[in-house]
Amino acid sequence: MLMVDIIEKKKKNIELSEEEINFVVSGAADGSIPDYQLSAFLMAVCLTSMTDRETTKLTMAMAQSGEMLDLSLLGDNTVDKHSTGGVGDKTTLICAPMAAALGCKVAKMSGRGLGHTGGTVDKLQSLDGYKINVSREEFLQNTLKNGICIVGQGGDFAPADKKLYALRDVTATTDCIPLIASSIVSKKLASGAKNIVLDVKYGKGAFMKTPEEAEVLAEEMVKICKNAGRRAVALVTDMNVPLGRAVGNSVEVQEAIEILKGNGDNKLKELCVLLAAHMYSLCFDKNIDEGIKKAESVIKNGAALEKLRLAVENAGGNVELIDGKSSFPEPEDMIYMEAEESGYICDINSLSIGKAAMLCGAGRAKKEDEIDYSAGVILMKNIGDYVEKGDKIAMLQGKNNKIREAAKVAKCAFSYSYQKPKSKDIVYKIIK
Amino acid sequence: MLMVDIIEKKKKNIELSEEEINFVVSGAADGSIPDYQLSAFLMAVCLTSMTDRETTKLTMAMAQSGEMLDLSLLGDNTVDKHSTGGVGDKTTLICAPMAAALGCKVAKMSGRGLGHTGGTVDKLQSLDGYKINVSREEFLQNTLKNGICIVGQGGDFAPADKKLYALRDVTATTDCIPLIASSIVSKKLASGAKNIVLDVKYGKGAFMKTPEEAEVLAEEMVKICKNAGRRAVALVTDMNVPLGRAVGNSVEVQEAIEILKGNGDNKLKELCVLLAAHMYSLCFDKNIDEGIKKAESVIKNGAALEKLRLAVENAGGNVELIDGKSSFPEPEDMIYMEAEESGYICDINSLSIGKAAMLCGAGRAKKEDEIDYSAGVILMKNIGDYVEKGDKIAMLQGKNNKIREAAKVAKCAFSYSYQKPKSKDIVYKIIK
Repeated sequence: MLMVDIIEKKKKNIELSEEEINFVVSGAADGSIPDYQLSAFLMAVCLTSMTDRETTKLTMAMAQSGEMLDLSLLGDNTVDKHSTGGVGDKTTLICAPMAAALGCKVAKMSGRGLGHTGGTVDKLQSLDGYKINVSREEFLQNTLKNGICIVGQGGDFAPADKKLYALRDVTATTDCIPLIASSIVSKKLASGAKNIVLDVKYGKGAFMKTPEEAEVLAEEMVKICKNAGRRAVALVTDMNVPLGRAVGNSVEVQEAIEILKGNGDNKLKELCVLLAAHMYSLCFDKNIDEGIKKAESVIKNGAALEKLRLAVENAGGNVELIDGKSSFPEPEDMIYMEAEESGYICDINSLSIGKAAMLCGAGRAKKEDEIDYSAGVILMKNIGDYVEKGDKIAMLQGKNNKIREAAKVAKCAFSYSYQKPKSKDIVYKIIK
Repeated sequence: MLMVDIIEKKKKNIELSEEEINFVVSGAADGSIPDYQLSAFLMAVCLTSMTDRETTKLTMAMAQSGEMLDLSLLGDNTVDKHSTGGVGDKTTLICAPMAAALGCKVAKMSGRGLGHTGGTVDKLQSLDGYKINVSREEFLQNTLKNGICIVGQGGDFAPADKKLYALRDVTATTDCIPLIASSIVSKKLASGAKNIVLDVKYGKGAFMKTPEEAEVLAEEMVKICKNAGRRAVALVTDMNVPLGRAVGNSVEVQEAIEILKGNGDNKLKELCVLLAAHMYSLCFDKNIDEGIKKAESVIKNGAALEKLRLAVENAGGNVELIDGKSSFPEPEDMIYMEAEESGYICDINSLSIGKAAMLCGAGRAKKEDEIDYSAGVILMKNIGDYVEKGDKIAMLQGKNNKIREAAKVAKCAFSYSYQKPKSKDIVYKIIK
């Protein structure tokens, strides 16, 4: 089999066989196919697309190119949740303990984040002492015992995807549904959960800009998961405005704790209840209305917060921060942003808020960058709130020199109107 | 300027600016753009194409990426002729001296061949002693004195094309009109001639399989030449059957000499007369009928043969081989092929004959391979000839073990019919 023939076939939009796809994927993983051939292949895929069959085979081959985590010890109710990424997205910190409280097994590996804020494990590390590297054995035993364990993504998962992902970034082949879907789902398949809930974001702060694009991606991913023998559902949700009030690391953990205590932002809570309900509903084959009721109940009765507490305790994190017995470290400095006009807040651009959080020091541009856990943005007003010029609308925290730069960017995020804007649903569609 | 942005733009089929094209070409030439980005770019060009403006800019940038030969010393009547390559194509050996005899200045650089037979300079080297490497000064002075000088392609012409050509070969991006046209024409522009005659082949033994495809390529190349300020014409010609009777190196030189003596295959002669007529007609702005008459006259009066003799003498080649005073070296062995059926020969597949010549030892697969100058195939019967089973139809010459292998392939080239096939025109179209 010659790579040049496979590229030629794809260029002519002829469906590739399983053997041909396996050849490409194993050649990407072991380095036997040179980058210039892989990138020509990726561009051909971008411009001619792939059939469902091809995308499924590609995804499975990429999953199988590295370690495949075996969660069979945990039974049939293992569940994973994945978000395509947004600004202020702390849903994993909330719905993972909720799902555990509902009886699901949440053996969750999370990546470190590159972007506006850290990833889920970075956020957890702001809980002083939280250990993200544990053995596979310990990971499984913790999940078996507590129903939940959240660790860093160790090991060699989907190395073929790592290779292709790096190439796509520098060859303008990122915005291609089969390549995006296979990249995300391959890692989910390798992570071993039998049930997968996907949160596919659209809007200014997301990779997909319109709900229609996000829906196409969601459908593709659900299809692949099912073709690969997993149960899956995808929620297509709005990321035009930041999710919740806090964007950063320790500030997001604090907001998550508030939600689990029954307080906090309504939309964020609504989304987390829905995500947890779908996790439960997939695992136990229950209808979603029952799931929603149960999900609400594990917030009310404190069972979900207790699961987070257990997970943090088990990982060596400081549970006093959850119990409110001690406080998260203060930022070096903070600054208030004031409304520049009087009126209703009609937009808070999530991309600008994300960039501001990054400038505060909450994220990393390169893998080696250090995160300032206490840095970030806290929104004090929400869409639909009426403000007078000069009212405090947000707080920026981090290093003194950084937050002043960040404030300039954050200022552009807010728009004002004379009329109260209509409330928008956070969930656009649910794809089963 | 970032290469990834240029790839993205091309992927979206947005016209690139001159600056962007120059960035790609200079990055290809100096190695500052990695192969994986170049190959993604090439695939994007293949699948979205280029505008005429882009193709012209690409061609000029590739030409200017290396040495640009200055032929101004030779005046306005410099002419170059290029064939896209076929089986038995010895036309340069014939029409270059014809054009010189008609007053054109033919300062011709030819590449060594990779393929079924050697290139023009390999064929000339079968004239014992023919020197293909001369200084630029000597090259110009020889052309000024004799009207003709044929040498090897020394120097660093269009290095960006060399880079992209090598990548295209391994990334399934060869069959793309803008890339083919710019690759060929960039080298012609760098070679400096003011007038360019292109022989664009179609058929089994050519890169373009149909006359329609060849016509598109021909139109594109003529357009670029004109946009770059050169006069140009292209002939779209048939390469379904081999050109003339001989396929090899010294056998093709001998056939060329025969044509210049007024003998030989009619179709080959017809094509050479037409090519030389167009070379003359472009240089002196004369109509083509006058060109044809004059081209025929320089064969009849021996002026063209004399120009070949001068060119060979000047290069230190053995002119006794032209004068018939000595003979070309004999091949180690030869073998006759016999007709397998009685009937009219209705097809001689040029690709099979080309492969047979290669197997005889007439060509190279890799740059380092040695050519057997006396190896090759000589057709003894032509399309439309009636043969009895067992009649000799072709002769294969070369090393004993090789020609037996070659005969198996050559056998497949011949088809027979009960009815005499219609004669087909060699020229399909002329693109001005």
